[in-house]
Amino acid sequence: MEAKAIVKRLTKYRASLVNFKELGFKTIYSTNLGESVGESPEQVRKDFSRFSLKGNKKAGYEIDPLLKSINYVLGKNIIQKIIVVGMGNIGKAFIQYKWFSSQNVSIIAAFDIDPSKHNKKMGLHVHPLSQLKDIIHGHNIQIAVIATPDSAAQEICDRLVAYGVRAILNFAPVVLKVPDEIIVHNLDLVNEINSMIYYVNNHKLYSL
Amino acid sequence: MEAKAIVKRLTKYRASLVNFKELGFKTIYSTNLGESVGESPEQVRKDFSRFSLKGNKKAGYEIDPLLKSINYVLGKNIIQKIIVVGMGNIGKAFIQYKWFSSQNVSIIAAFDIDPSKHNKKMGLHVHPLSQLKDIIHGHNIQIAVIATPDSAAQEICDRLVAYGVRAILNFAPVVLKVPDEIIVHNLDLVNEINSMIYYVNNHKLYSL
Repeated sequence: MEAKAIVKRLTKYRASLVNFKELGFKTIYSTNLGESVGESPEQVRKDFSRFSLKGNKKAGYEIDPLLKSINYVLGKNIIQKIIVVGMGNIGKAFIQYKWFSSQNVSIIAAFDIDPSKHNKKMGLHVHPLSQLKDIIHGHNIQIAVIATPDSAAQEICDRLVAYGVRAILNFAPVVLKVPDEIIVHNLDLVNEINSMIYYVNNHKLYSL
Repeated sequence: MEAKAIVKRLTKYRASLVNFKELGFKTIYSTNLGESVGESPEQVRKDFSRFSLKGNKKAGYEIDPLLKSINYVLGKNIIQKIIVVGMGNIGKAFIQYKWFSSQNVSIIAAFDIDPSKHNKKMGLHVHPLSQLKDIIHGHNIQIAVIATPDSAAQEICDRLVAYGVRAILNFAPVVLKVPDEIIVHNLDLVNEINSMIYYVNNHKLYSL
């Protein structure tokens, strides 16, 4: 997906710009920024012009407004609240993934159908599904993670979308049906492993 | 990655062929098979011819040899042994992922640098890293999962490759450097979440 590649580049530019800023730089050329992140200066300029980030060939880009704009595009200027549905092994690993605490992503609630998991301490409140709607509406949640068994995934997905969620990260190995304006990213471990098995067994065919 | 799409289609064909076989079918036409999995008959024939799976327009494909060939291509005819390095939350969730028990994938060993995790029961023996080489060689392991902290990932990767691993599923949010003939699939939760944040904040830009 093209968006993932753009986000990856913008994230790299951002990290590099923070470094340059800390070194005392006030402006930067696309050539230097590109070199520091392994992209061509053309790619840097193309990415920046896509988001109307202004600079000029002679003076380069001013770092402060550039960082501000990239932060805006990446949503770094706000705390992004997300929820996780399904507190099996994958769901639990996800909410405990240490990276999230260092970003401005906040997992504000988890959900599970199993009453024995409710209110258990994992640094996060686990709610029954009956509270899904209220919490999504109350916090204006737009991003949700589905980590339920396959059989429950589509029903949960339908409810999330009905309550206003616009982007879903799906760990269940099923293809979710959603309206066109909703984005679903699938992290299908089954397919990942199968495609690696396919690779090691069909090395010569792989490049076809 | 093209291979993932091929494997996904072959997996769907396989499931459908098993169904047709259970219903008493001996042969199948690309039209019917395509319909049952949501692919065009042209796509079915193209996929099958890529792997020299024979059939003809009039008589269709014989199901038994077709299943046998697909199983071979997907590596379903052998037990695929894999190992997991890093027994943090992600590594633990991975080895406990219930899907693997229903496939012919066998996670034969886990590894962690932390001695307190060794030999702990999680249905699997957790070994110190000093045993990595012997276990990879002893079991002829070709597929490994990296679920270590970022800082350890490249070093582990180098060792895996040196010991003969050819395919790596990487959960650490770093870009691993490997020789050309080694395949790495990245499951970067950081980038997944960031690209969803980007989507909900830049809906109109997303389709650019």
